[in-house]
Amino acid sequence: MSYKKVALIGLGLIASSIFWSMKRAGMATQVSGTARSAQTRETARKIGLCDEVTDTAADAVKDADLVILCVPVGAMGSVMAEIAPHLKRGAVVSDVGSTKRSVIDAVTPHLPDGVQFVAAHPLAGTEHSGPEAGFAELFDNRWCLLTPEAEADADAVSMLADFWRALGANVDQMDPDHHDLVLAVTSHVPHLIAYTMVGVADDLHRVTDSEVINYSAAGFRDFTRIAASDPTMWRDVFLSNKEASLEILGRFTEEMFALQRAIRKGDGDHLHDFFTRTRSIRRGIIEAGQDTDAPNFGRHKT
Amino acid sequence: MSYKKVALIGLGLIASSIFWSMKRAGMATQVSGTARSAQTRETARKIGLCDEVTDTAADAVKDADLVILCVPVGAMGSVMAEIAPHLKRGAVVSDVGSTKRSVIDAVTPHLPDGVQFVAAHPLAGTEHSGPEAGFAELFDNRWCLLTPEAEADADAVSMLADFWRALGANVDQMDPDHHDLVLAVTSHVPHLIAYTMVGVADDLHRVTDSEVINYSAAGFRDFTRIAASDPTMWRDVFLSNKEASLEILGRFTEEMFALQRAIRKGDGDHLHDFFTRTRSIRRGIIEAGQDTDAPNFGRHKT
Repeated sequence: MSYKKVALIGLGLIASSIFWSMKRAGMATQVSGTARSAQTRETARKIGLCDEVTDTAADAVKDADLVILCVPVGAMGSVMAEIAPHLKRGAVVSDVGSTKRSVIDAVTPHLPDGVQFVAAHPLAGTEHSGPEAGFAELFDNRWCLLTPEAEADADAVSMLADFWRALGANVDQMDPDHHDLVLAVTSHVPHLIAYTMVGVADDLHRVTDSEVINYSAAGFRDFTRIAASDPTMWRDVFLSNKEASLEILGRFTEEMFALQRAIRKGDGDHLHDFFTRTRSIRRGIIEAGQDTDAPNFGRHKT
Repeated sequence: MSYKKVALIGLGLIASSIFWSMKRAGMATQVSGTARSAQTRETARKIGLCDEVTDTAADAVKDADLVILCVPVGAMGSVMAEIAPHLKRGAVVSDVGSTKRSVIDAVTPHLPDGVQFVAAHPLAGTEHSGPEAGFAELFDNRWCLLTPEAEADADAVSMLADFWRALGANVDQMDPDHHDLVLAVTSHVPHLIAYTMVGVADDLHRVTDSEVINYSAAGFRDFTRIAASDPTMWRDVFLSNKEASLEILGRFTEEMFALQRAIRKGDGDHLHDFFTRTRSIRRGIIEAGQDTDAPNFGRHKT
């Protein structure tokens, strides 16, 4: 069994990748989509994104079996309020937000009777955003974490899991609060740090822009890629995952001050021990197949 | 005109890439090499790294026109002292260290009459180290920064620049102290931050190792790649570029505290403005050709 109609609310990188990935999978599902901006809707129509692009979210969700909210985390509540009266009885609403507790708290008060919400977070992205940024392979071998609440219908959860598997993703389930902590460590705080470091480079007038750009070795270049992600999305992530972000930032600061002190004191053993320990995590990630250890990683030939 | 014999002291990632790149370029130059560890020398002999692998640095540098010190920054001074009595008159000594002021200060007191030192730093590397990690393409389209002192012989500098160009690199010249500041921003501090964040993840017992590994989204995964670099090399980098590293770390901490405060206060405008500003640096790096904006950057198909 699968969905007859899927509605995508918001047409950025993730929604457009969902659409192309559904087409790649050969799903017969009818896909409607909408976006707040008229320009985005026009672009979507021009590039054939979605079988139907509607001007309103109310029209998009009409008769849909699955509605996926693909808007910034801060907009989830108001979008849910807008579509609620137009949802089909028996429909499932899901999302793709990077934080889960705040989305659940924003969305569930607006849920009509007979409609379920199953929160989800595909761990995939690029530095690009917008309707033209999507591609069918985005979710291949990436995780999609479902964070249903205890009372969620098992069939609805299992059907959504099948949907994400069909898009190429691996699926796992997790408690929403635990999800937010794990992602603060593995994604949110690393992004904040990358943004910060890029800002430092931009401020440093003793170093020219062209030097920062030309001589950006691997470390900084990776940071700029991370720091090029969508500003609105990341603003909402930090506002809505405040507690876990601040906890991890506090731990980060402690560790960094310890290393800073070792540099100031010339304590080479402390530095060497620390650098040796962190290497093993990297090995684990390669073994888990989440990355490659090709020696020219990230260096495509032209 | 080119070198008749080149000696590589230390046989890790950079030295082995220099050798394979020289072979790719079809240079007729004789290449001798040596390493402190007997095991490294044995591996080098086994894989055909260098035309001749000698047991001592003294033997390796015999009759060499160019000697490249490819050892950790902290070992440059003692290696230079060891080879000094065996250098040919007219030879040029260079290096590949990530910091330049400390290397110049460590090496030049040992220079015999008639031998010149021209410091260099190829901005290239991978997360791998050791004699088997090298490959001929490592320096292609990467920068090699030469930081000769004012009294350096122009012909010696220009010949070394030609050598690096033949290996595929772009060559530029820079004052050694300025080099150390630029690299602190674009490489050294980003590496320290990445190491720190990976250490935080490792310490956080409320998150399991497998979660950190499985769900490492782009941000953290990039950090682990950076943090997998050679611990000895990085220890020496921070000990020998202490002043610039501490200055940049201080600026980083200031910026991060401002963002942390914005998160705590829920100041979305501050976050959004900051995240928008950093995006432009990324665009500059792509335009400068130091990276690719392919949407599946870093995600090789298997």
